[in-house]
Amino acid sequence: MSAKKFSEDHRVVYYETDVTGSLGIGRLVDLMMLSSEDQSDKLGITNEKVGERGLGWVVTQHIINIKRLPKVDEIITLSTQAKSYNRFFCYRDFAVYDQAGNELVTMHSVFVLMDRSKRKMVRLPEDIITPYESEYTKKIERLPMPLTVENASGQKNYRVRFMDIDANHHVNNVHYFDWMLDALPAEFLLSHRLIKMNIAYRQEVYYGDQVNSAVEIDEDNLLTRHTIMTGEQQNCLAECEWAEIK
Amino acid sequence: MSAKKFSEDHRVVYYETDVTGSLGIGRLVDLMMLSSEDQSDKLGITNEKVGERGLGWVVTQHIINIKRLPKVDEIITLSTQAKSYNRFFCYRDFAVYDQAGNELVTMHSVFVLMDRSKRKMVRLPEDIITPYESEYTKKIERLPMPLTVENASGQKNYRVRFMDIDANHHVNNVHYFDWMLDALPAEFLLSHRLIKMNIAYRQEVYYGDQVNSAVEIDEDNLLTRHTIMTGEQQNCLAECEWAEIK
Repeated sequence: MSAKKFSEDHRVVYYETDVTGSLGIGRLVDLMMLSSEDQSDKLGITNEKVGERGLGWVVTQHIINIKRLPKVDEIITLSTQAKSYNRFFCYRDFAVYDQAGNELVTMHSVFVLMDRSKRKMVRLPEDIITPYESEYTKKIERLPMPLTVENASGQKNYRVRFMDIDANHHVNNVHYFDWMLDALPAEFLLSHRLIKMNIAYRQEVYYGDQVNSAVEIDEDNLLTRHTIMTGEQQNCLAECEWAEIK
Repeated sequence: MSAKKFSEDHRVVYYETDVTGSLGIGRLVDLMMLSSEDQSDKLGITNEKVGERGLGWVVTQHIINIKRLPKVDEIITLSTQAKSYNRFFCYRDFAVYDQAGNELVTMHSVFVLMDRSKRKMVRLPEDIITPYESEYTKKIERLPMPLTVENASGQKNYRVRFMDIDANHHVNNVHYFDWMLDALPAEFLLSHRLIKMNIAYRQEVYYGDQVNSAVEIDEDNLLTRHTIMTGEQQNCLAECEWAEIK
């Protein structure tokens, strides 16, 4: 048995792009997450239904590979499947294709179900998982963890704004990515393109929080490391691989 | 002759909403602006074509009336027409409808064409205007101007981020609205809904700029006034009318 696939199309519009005319990375992740919500809705496992049981899906990690970021006005196909699961973790694959069928982006993501009042991970209930036809596996994936920033070459502070919180009462993805990448110099962002990103979420950020975004640049290997902290708390960390734009 | 109408549908998705589950006001304006871009593309008057002549459309004012903000997952119809024009100004009307045909939002906007190198308004070239079948009028509309903030009850500072600049090389609409409304207390935003907004743009904001968002609250009349400043420069001002959420 292999997991059900879900696909939908999306037109990239101007306000989803950055100054280079390409889809912003945070918006890209939003779109992929939307495709998984849409699959869940289609299968009847809506966020409301999960919420009624006091539970909520939480992403703990994304590993993103980017061949090319779609351009403004381009139609892309978002595809996803909840590939496999074990007692606590769901592994979901995403892909983005252009209209010629070329794979532009892939993302591998880890989801857990949280008890919202206890703020604790729960064992995945069978009836919530079954409709996706995911493969059960005993194996817990050992994904590479982003290393923490040790010698920050730059940092910026941000305040979580009222409009940063979405209908799911979370700080929307786009803001984590903006905080991380905005800490890089504009000259770096304009002369490099992101080809790989490994982002791990540790602790949620709330409205009014002051977040610190620190970055370490390894120019030789075109690697950057990022941490988002609130005080002493590490909320999110990421490792990015870049290619020079010739 | 009456101006050509253009309509398109849009599904409101979670990342376009705020914590109340309604479409954010900045995103609402983005969507309406997108409908006017889409009409222009359809009529062959693309931004690229206008840009090749060294020109670019700039909005100087929006007057927005909101009966109800659409909710997450709602399908809305965006409708627009370039109603009338004189030598320098284009007046465009927008409306947003729900699936039952109820009018949720209207917006009246003023556009000018800028010479990009001289940063000066130009007379509207006939061939750029004709395809919209707008009505020519000698009259220059005297729209009410938002008053400036005199006694700020709150203010916050923001830095323009790399990702705030879109493919048009402008600070995206959503950020102006976020800067303005985020300066209000969360309790106010959660207990009131925006019913009218008059926003006037004076001077563009650029990457790296520090902007100050100041707000004055008139609790008796449920009015708020907002200014966005960079140093001594007034970049944008707005007046908002609110209704209490019972």
